[in-house]
Amino acid sequence: MNEENFVDYLAKLFHRRSDVGIGPGDDAAVLDLGIPGTLLLAAADQVIENIHYLPETPIGKVARKLLNRNISDIAAMGGVPTHALVTLASNPLNMDMLKAFHEALGDEARKYNVSIIGGDIAANPVKGSVISLTILGTVLRKNLCLRSNACAGDLLYCTGEFGNSFPGDHHLEFVPRLRESQFLAGFFSSAMIDVSDGLLKDASRMAHASKLAVVFHDPASIPARNHATLQQAFCDGEDYELIFAVPPGKAEELERKAVEKQIKITRIGYFKKGKHGTAWDGNGNPIQFDDAEGYDHFHEK
Amino acid sequence: MNEENFVDYLAKLFHRRSDVGIGPGDDAAVLDLGIPGTLLLAAADQVIENIHYLPETPIGKVARKLLNRNISDIAAMGGVPTHALVTLASNPLNMDMLKAFHEALGDEARKYNVSIIGGDIAANPVKGSVISLTILGTVLRKNLCLRSNACAGDLLYCTGEFGNSFPGDHHLEFVPRLRESQFLAGFFSSAMIDVSDGLLKDASRMAHASKLAVVFHDPASIPARNHATLQQAFCDGEDYELIFAVPPGKAEELERKAVEKQIKITRIGYFKKGKHGTAWDGNGNPIQFDDAEGYDHFHEK
Repeated sequence: MNEENFVDYLAKLFHRRSDVGIGPGDDAAVLDLGIPGTLLLAAADQVIENIHYLPETPIGKVARKLLNRNISDIAAMGGVPTHALVTLASNPLNMDMLKAFHEALGDEARKYNVSIIGGDIAANPVKGSVISLTILGTVLRKNLCLRSNACAGDLLYCTGEFGNSFPGDHHLEFVPRLRESQFLAGFFSSAMIDVSDGLLKDASRMAHASKLAVVFHDPASIPARNHATLQQAFCDGEDYELIFAVPPGKAEELERKAVEKQIKITRIGYFKKGKHGTAWDGNGNPIQFDDAEGYDHFHEK
Repeated sequence: MNEENFVDYLAKLFHRRSDVGIGPGDDAAVLDLGIPGTLLLAAADQVIENIHYLPETPIGKVARKLLNRNISDIAAMGGVPTHALVTLASNPLNMDMLKAFHEALGDEARKYNVSIIGGDIAANPVKGSVISLTILGTVLRKNLCLRSNACAGDLLYCTGEFGNSFPGDHHLEFVPRLRESQFLAGFFSSAMIDVSDGLLKDASRMAHASKLAVVFHDPASIPARNHATLQQAFCDGEDYELIFAVPPGKAEELERKAVEKQIKITRIGYFKKGKHGTAWDGNGNPIQFDDAEGYDHFHEK
């Protein structure tokens, strides 16, 4: 069972309250709690020592990564983050580490007007740390972006660059694309996803959720981070960029306004009818890499 | 730095949005998001293999414990749970375990009208599991109970029994006191806390938050679970009972209505002016046990 199938399995398993607009499966859940004009967003993600960071990574950088990868999920929905809760299990656990972690977390959260409102700290009986963060956010009802909202003919754009996230510490130091999301959401796009598992995998997910295929008409046009190869750009993961669908009629205005606002976006493809979730190049060939499963947070063993 | 001091330290460290009614330090955070008459509650807690359960504990029981200890926090605020997000890091990680965990979690959540709306699953590089759950809930503004709301002269009552939570598997199989909370909140009590770290410790916390002392006028009156000794009842922890303050003028009606509704409550003490957070017996002697720090989830090493 892959990640998509497992999410489908869970969706059938779990009770769905009438106030749940979107449950598991998008970048964040969407709740309609009766706040006028506004929906609540909620997402949770974790960082694990020796998977998402190394034992020698300064714990303050770990705190920032943990917060920002959750904020990236809120940005992908067109929302803004508001509150977070954090649970930390660590071994060793000492006051210097806890202070460094929470001070960095608090500083970073303040930048985005996020309040840390709760959590738990515990000693881990085995060496290593697991740190989990739940982010809450809000989105104006008219700004909500879903990965399933792309239409056939929509153009696919991206923010930033792809690949080589690990060598240059981009995966620790990226800035979540909140400003870009606020520029795009509602007017230029209502279909967006954040790229954490690799461009190819997340674009295919977006296509799959929208019951479409995606075409990268000119793979060489994909912006590469730090001299990444095409395969690295497509598959490395942990880019924390946004990709989004734009109706063709809005493309010209989008590109002009993006330049005015100094927001870097690049057109990299389009959506078409076709086998759901498949990816193609401009010559009609499927895009595949031998080991190209992207960076999958769901590792079945 | 103990848990209370650390929470004070965090409260000063973290940005506080104007919509945060109560931040870290009570059983749940309280947010005023503009839902008419209603406040949002949020809390997060984790269970860790070899701390909160054993490797041989069926994973379905772990799922229920994780959910119910979070629901207990919502009950302590006078609220009802609504949504949850779960992150799981496990080694080994296999589909049988994931299905057993999520099926039990889904079944238990359905009982309480809770929707599981998101989360993350990852392989833990070291043996063992860390599972974190964030619970959301709602509380009518008029029903909100805080640990800081006790007044001098209020009587202290409890639900259920205390001590010996581990030998009989109470810590895995308890039913969170939602029904009791809904009976009490708003009318009989506006000061409540759930007892997870031991009766003495959590009653002292409630007294401390309310700037009062607490008196157990007759310790022998404390209901003991499964022949627990007085020390066990005071200190074992993981009881997941509620203790709550009742104005003396409401005690008679409370006790009568509790009998009618077959809700077991016991009067075990009262609050008085005194050194904040201290606990006393009926003879004016401080209540202390040699190793009586209670079960503290915050283990500094």
